[in-house]
Amino acid sequence: MSVGLDALFSPRSIALIGASDDSTRIGGRPLKYLRGSGFAGPVYPVNPRRETVQGERAYASIVDLPTVPDLALLAVPAAATRQAVEDCASAGVKAATIFAAGFAEMGEEGKAEQARIVAAARASGLRLLGPNCLGAADAASGYYGTFSVMLDDGFLTPGPVAIVSQSGAYGSHIAQLARNRCMGIRHWITTGNECDVDVAEALRWVVERDEVKVVMTYAEGVRNRASFFEALDIARRRGIGVVMLKVGRSEAGAHAVGSHTAALAGSDVVFDAICRQYGVYRARSTAEQIDVAYALSRAGVPSGNTLGIFSMSGGLGIQMADDGDAAGLEITPMPAAAQAELKALLPYASPVNPVDATAQAMTDLPLMTRYIQVVLEQGGYDMFVAILGTTPALPSYSARLAEALEAAGDGNGIIRAVTMSAPVETVRAYEARGFLVFEDSVALTRALGALVTFRGSFARAAAATSEMPALPAPFTRTGALSEHSAKALLADAGIPFPRECLAATPDDAAAAAKAIGFPVVLKICSPDVPHKTDVGGVLVGLKDEAAVRAGAALLVERALAAVPDARVEGVLVAPMIGGGAEVIAGISIDAALGPVVMFGLGGVFVEVLKDVTFRAVPFSVEEAHRMIAETSAAVVLKGVRGATPGDIDALAETLAALSRFAAANEAGLAGVDINPIRVMPAGEGVVPLDALVLLAE
Amino acid sequence: MSVGLDALFSPRSIALIGASDDSTRIGGRPLKYLRGSGFAGPVYPVNPRRETVQGERAYASIVDLPTVPDLALLAVPAAATRQAVEDCASAGVKAATIFAAGFAEMGEEGKAEQARIVAAARASGLRLLGPNCLGAADAASGYYGTFSVMLDDGFLTPGPVAIVSQSGAYGSHIAQLARNRCMGIRHWITTGNECDVDVAEALRWVVERDEVKVVMTYAEGVRNRASFFEALDIARRRGIGVVMLKVGRSEAGAHAVGSHTAALAGSDVVFDAICRQYGVYRARSTAEQIDVAYALSRAGVPSGNTLGIFSMSGGLGIQMADDGDAAGLEITPMPAAAQAELKALLPYASPVNPVDATAQAMTDLPLMTRYIQVVLEQGGYDMFVAILGTTPALPSYSARLAEALEAAGDGNGIIRAVTMSAPVETVRAYEARGFLVFEDSVALTRALGALVTFRGSFARAAAATSEMPALPAPFTRTGALSEHSAKALLADAGIPFPRECLAATPDDAAAAAKAIGFPVVLKICSPDVPHKTDVGGVLVGLKDEAAVRAGAALLVERALAAVPDARVEGVLVAPMIGGGAEVIAGISIDAALGPVVMFGLGGVFVEVLKDVTFRAVPFSVEEAHRMIAETSAAVVLKGVRGATPGDIDALAETLAALSRFAAANEAGLAGVDINPIRVMPAGEGVVPLDALVLLAE
Repeated sequence: MSVGLDALFSPRSIALIGASDDSTRIGGRPLKYLRGSGFAGPVYPVNPRRETVQGERAYASIVDLPTVPDLALLAVPAAATRQAVEDCASAGVKAATIFAAGFAEMGEEGKAEQARIVAAARASGLRLLGPNCLGAADAASGYYGTFSVMLDDGFLTPGPVAIVSQSGAYGSHIAQLARNRCMGIRHWITTGNECDVDVAEALRWVVERDEVKVVMTYAEGVRNRASFFEALDIARRRGIGVVMLKVGRSEAGAHAVGSHTAALAGSDVVFDAICRQYGVYRARSTAEQIDVAYALSRAGVPSGNTLGIFSMSGGLGIQMADDGDAAGLEITPMPAAAQAELKALLPYASPVNPVDATAQAMTDLPLMTRYIQVVLEQGGYDMFVAILGTTPALPSYSARLAEALEAAGDGNGIIRAVTMSAPVETVRAYEARGFLVFEDSVALTRALGALVTFRGSFARAAAATSEMPALPAPFTRTGALSEHSAKALLADAGIPFPRECLAATPDDAAAAAKAIGFPVVLKICSPDVPHKTDVGGVLVGLKDEAAVRAGAALLVERALAAVPDARVEGVLVAPMIGGGAEVIAGISIDAALGPVVMFGLGGVFVEVLKDVTFRAVPFSVEEAHRMIAETSAAVVLKGVRGATPGDIDALAETLAALSRFAAANEAGLAGVDINPIRVMPAGEGVVPLDALVLLAE
Repeated sequence: MSVGLDALFSPRSIALIGASDDSTRIGGRPLKYLRGSGFAGPVYPVNPRRETVQGERAYASIVDLPTVPDLALLAVPAAATRQAVEDCASAGVKAATIFAAGFAEMGEEGKAEQARIVAAARASGLRLLGPNCLGAADAASGYYGTFSVMLDDGFLTPGPVAIVSQSGAYGSHIAQLARNRCMGIRHWITTGNECDVDVAEALRWVVERDEVKVVMTYAEGVRNRASFFEALDIARRRGIGVVMLKVGRSEAGAHAVGSHTAALAGSDVVFDAICRQYGVYRARSTAEQIDVAYALSRAGVPSGNTLGIFSMSGGLGIQMADDGDAAGLEITPMPAAAQAELKALLPYASPVNPVDATAQAMTDLPLMTRYIQVVLEQGGYDMFVAILGTTPALPSYSARLAEALEAAGDGNGIIRAVTMSAPVETVRAYEARGFLVFEDSVALTRALGALVTFRGSFARAAAATSEMPALPAPFTRTGALSEHSAKALLADAGIPFPRECLAATPDDAAAAAKAIGFPVVLKICSPDVPHKTDVGGVLVGLKDEAAVRAGAALLVERALAAVPDARVEGVLVAPMIGGGAEVIAGISIDAALGPVVMFGLGGVFVEVLKDVTFRAVPFSVEEAHRMIAETSAAVVLKGVRGATPGDIDALAETLAALSRFAAANEAGLAGVDINPIRVMPAGEGVVPLDALVLLAE
């Protein structure tokens, strides 16, 4: 399979079908680019109506070529595409890029034609990129299988960045912006309609390249979640940062996605949670995507999350401290001895952090150097920033200032940055001296915060796998299970329900209650009464055998009155359990992303504030802890107002168990609710009180 | 008073004390600038040690000048400053700008010297700017009373923007950034140590100028809240947008503020709420501050909050829709007839909104023009954006594209914007055609969202005043009032407490309970037992006279056991009132911002989530509604899960009444808690159940 992808993304030989003599046209640009870039392999122009194309010999057909090329670029109209694909398939070409638009994005007829093209390719194993795409490039080999006009400005410079974008326009746009930032781009891939290769598969190919450190990716939805998750997992394990822009967050956006592509947008809040789970940095804007990729490609990940700030203006230092704090960085104070040394150098400086050397430092550059040196060498920071404002824009100052900064050393590998507003040549000069350069403190601190996040997710990659127990497969019928059956199923999967008893008769119920201890709860147990309280199917606080006996009879009566042919399994007798904080958990099946475990604090938090989070399944106990920490439950379970902290460990074990259950049984499940779960004080576990399991129809 | 400020910010004549022959020094730059800018009034260099300065006659002393100047710029060392101020005061100069540093920011001795300088000025009414400031400028008159090196790049171009910054470095920084964006800056003021004129007073002066439409301001704290609020109120009433960056949000930042200036940072969350109250746009970053000021100064406020989006790439359109939605804009669909017209023009376009004309529009500019025209003329949008990406960067395309856009007309005053990434000359060309130009969709939509916010706050300016009833002044003692006294006081101010009775004896309590109706609540009533539940001072659900009689005796016993010399006023007898949603309200006195009313949803929301908001007092009922809408209470009171909506009107009336009480009694108050307040179903009012009033010590 990788052979076809290698051919698509980094071919050794190329045929250009529909080659044009006009180098500004779709059929002309790729040839011009491939010649201009010095691509070393053969490139065969194919055009039955011409002897030559752009001064080169043109071939009448793909069968006339001296060798079978790895890749065919199809610069032919939509109507001629199927024939071209068939020709490539019979010739034994490994892959083809389809530039033409007018397929699935155009409605039913286009969709059908696209399907026929895929079928024609599949027979011979021919892999397809597009249609309706801008193609791909590999800057190292000079492979430019694209007609993107961005190359009118020059070719890409190879570097540690890759771009994988469903949208060709967006892919060109961020490539341009990245170039303006002097970022080296090695692989550039656009997938268009994704009739065969999608963003996930391209991403997977890219994150297996050793030369790639950062991928900027853009998608409107996920078509194949298994390969998407796999790509993200590989990226994380290999320490490659994925910086993603996914659109369709808003209703208007989701609507537009629907009208634009056939991709399933999925639930955006689930997508967001899964990005956190896999350590993908989801950028909120193009600017942020570029900023984060810039920082990661140049600086890598820091060894921790502390930031030392050097300023020459109190106000700008405070602003940076605020912004760093908001981005999750720690602005720890300088050690006392270092503070004393700085004070001795300049009595009216502020030596804590932000370290403010005042405007004095501008007129005494050796002093500035010494100041920065003390911060770098004695501050113990993981990251450092010097706030330079508009000063470097003054030509008389720029170079001397850069030298003074560089003279302070690199603090033994600390990530060093400056903020400044200056012409691009000045920015380049500071970058050449090893500094990240940002104009804005929010953009810088957010990017540094992203590096810290990557550090965490790269570090925990190894722990993310988990074992899946073999579960019974009781899915002999569909729809809801009774509470008792649901609990039995989930208990086998490791969910710790309290002791309870299914009683077939009022006398059995009374005996069970006596054994459990009064007071007890009675609940009707029937797969046909999934919402028990709606029919008065729950009685609480029953204090003696007589009450239980009468209650059991009443519940059956009520259930049958509400649902006359309900299959009543009996009455559940359970202990009254109070105390602890109420949370809820469940499994839902996301249309695009598959089974996910949901978790939230119970009651108004879920109902009103939608304060819930999600994870793709299965996940580790460690991941469950991170999941809990994302919700208000984290604060409540820590123990509010002197209350005992809750048993967060037991809760995390339960969520991880639920995730394994979901993963093992995803084919048969429609949904699970465990609501409420009482989280008891630390060491006393969790007590799930009710469960609903819906099987797939 | 305004005479002195006019002299500081737009003088007709100037003396430069400490004038230097070296035009790169602090004493030399202002003279160079004032000559270079063509300032029309007299400028007198004063330097006792020189005959001439920069080729001009130098005067030995301020008393030697031919006329008394409006303003003296003091470019003398800190040690010589007091003498210079005294000389100016005796000469009858109206105002002086002190450049020197080394005063309050340096510790106790500097602070004392600064105070002596203020005293020396006050006698003659001499107004002071600084010390430790960069001065001020008026670009229209060519007044540059500053030594800021930013002017090495050229003078400011007058325009509708003003800058008022406590920090000179920050003021120069944003002036530079604004210039890079081609924004015209009329007034530029930095206040430094603010020994006399502070940001609030300068802001007030600026917002009274007709030529100003937008003020970018920067502060580390608020020294004089009355003049700050007054300036904001004037700005809002005059339709002038204030775009503020206030630092000190984080702990690290607040700490740095403390070490940097003497300004009171105040509580940042209160400051944030007050910005919303006064319609100040609080920027989170310098980039955002510039973006919002740029949009408002060029486009003014829109007539509503709908945005029409034109794109030639589905992905970029969706991204814009997402970002617009996040910024509070409405991405409403095109009318059906207009959609049909667009479909007829281009069958595979997406005509809803975002309107995606596909890449086809790039090769058919008349089609693009027609498309945009339909959106502008038939879409009914208040704002419009065309997403151009990197295309305008192509020289061959840029001008033709701009013409095609402009040919679509202006849609009768719709705010029009484009996003693109292109060289600055291209950006200028699009701006000249009436488009706002942004590189990033988040930056654009956030700025447009800010314009919508300004529109709302300008529109509601007139309704924001409120009447203050004359309240009794019972502050004959300090500390806590008893619950009964607190309620009586607040009831007079319009807070609707339920009927209850203060009983002096157990028999009185029993009689009162009978009159109120059982069951009742009993509460100990004593100013010395403010936290009643801590001493077991509350009994609920008492069902008969005997229980009340016994309970009353028990409460007094418990209170005296806990606080032996407590002044017991008696026992409060109140009806049991349940139902409704629990909220809390109160008054607290912010160190910098004065009395504020706090409001939040009760229970875990306040305790755990800090989901509360604030307003400076007094405020209108309308403002109280906006306050409620900022918290989770808004969702809960709307009626969760089919529950009846709460009486939000009555709640808003109560909050406004509380705000009037706070305003009328701020001198004597230390704090008020009304907790809980039960918000009953709509039409049934609110029921405050408990109240605590703390008087100032």
